[in-house]
Amino acid sequence: MSLSPRLEALIDAFCCLPGVGRKSAQRMAFHLLERDRDGAAHLSAMLGDALEHIGRCELCQTFSETDRCPVCQDHTRNPELLCVVESPADLVAIEQSGDFSGYYFVLLGHLSPIDGIGPEDIGVDRLLEQIRQRGVRELIMATNATVEGDATAHYIADRVDESVVTITRPAQGLPVGGELGVVDGGTLSHALRGRRPLTGQFE
Amino acid sequence: MSLSPRLEALIDAFCCLPGVGRKSAQRMAFHLLERDRDGAAHLSAMLGDALEHIGRCELCQTFSETDRCPVCQDHTRNPELLCVVESPADLVAIEQSGDFSGYYFVLLGHLSPIDGIGPEDIGVDRLLEQIRQRGVRELIMATNATVEGDATAHYIADRVDESVVTITRPAQGLPVGGELGVVDGGTLSHALRGRRPLTGQFE
Repeated sequence: MSLSPRLEALIDAFCCLPGVGRKSAQRMAFHLLERDRDGAAHLSAMLGDALEHIGRCELCQTFSETDRCPVCQDHTRNPELLCVVESPADLVAIEQSGDFSGYYFVLLGHLSPIDGIGPEDIGVDRLLEQIRQRGVRELIMATNATVEGDATAHYIADRVDESVVTITRPAQGLPVGGELGVVDGGTLSHALRGRRPLTGQFE
Repeated sequence: MSLSPRLEALIDAFCCLPGVGRKSAQRMAFHLLERDRDGAAHLSAMLGDALEHIGRCELCQTFSETDRCPVCQDHTRNPELLCVVESPADLVAIEQSGDFSGYYFVLLGHLSPIDGIGPEDIGVDRLLEQIRQRGVRELIMATNATVEGDATAHYIADRVDESVVTITRPAQGLPVGGELGVVDGGTLSHALRGRRPLTGQFE
């Protein structure tokens, strides 16, 4: 027996969510229709609403309902610090750490020649323009600690005038609370190579 | 920093999905807005469409776009066999096994006095009426093999006139391909108590 066509269509539509395969999609569709029709109507409405109203900030490219996002509108921040991240989720994570007071620039992903994603797709020219306009002194390349993230960071660093701007990258090493025995080799070598004097590390 | 209000609302809306917490909901919202706006629009539309058009079959209570579902409309089936399941997903699973040729009745869950779900909520009266109307001879109680599923099966069995209808329950035992050493004790005792002569079991 096949399911009703609309139910099939709904299950297929759920498969566009990350990490959701056919089985989970079916469970979601059945759950909503069986037990939470109000939640389903709300989700449908919120999706439509978000698509209609959420665009990107004209300065930093993060998600925003207004031309400029709340961070870019906040004039108490330090314009000499600019943090480059791959996605709006990374921006949120850094903001939640509460340890950064500068502005951001959100690339639209990372360089990936194999997928046809080049410098213009991640907005490198707009980033360079912002560095000039804001008078940035330090550029923190907080792209992911992956091969693609590293490559993107190095490409951008090559395009920036290093006589004016210092370029940094977040430290790689042991996670807080991490046990040495369970940390992978690559992280451990980074942690050892990046070792700092004991007296200085709690400053 | 808080996210934009519409983004927060969208993330909250995703939390209504089963097995989706705040972190996954955020990942879903960001993924759709960043990479799959078409998929998001499609999901929103399909949800609205499903809510508007998918109701329940007037006979068996499963999801259906028409008054009667395709199974109930199929007059080549055996009306003497009626299989009672907890949800439309169970009906689909049994149909996919291809081993059942009768009709179904889908309860709207299972009896759960603690949640205020009584016999009228799972449609027991409608089930009894169907048993009479269809001239059912065997009622297969395929509710889940859980405490609630067992209790529901026993409650319904008590309400059915057993001089007219035989009541059965699917066998409990080892899953096909299962290894004895990894099967839990409860399943193993069911498998042993329900043992059958070797000559008969492949019939």
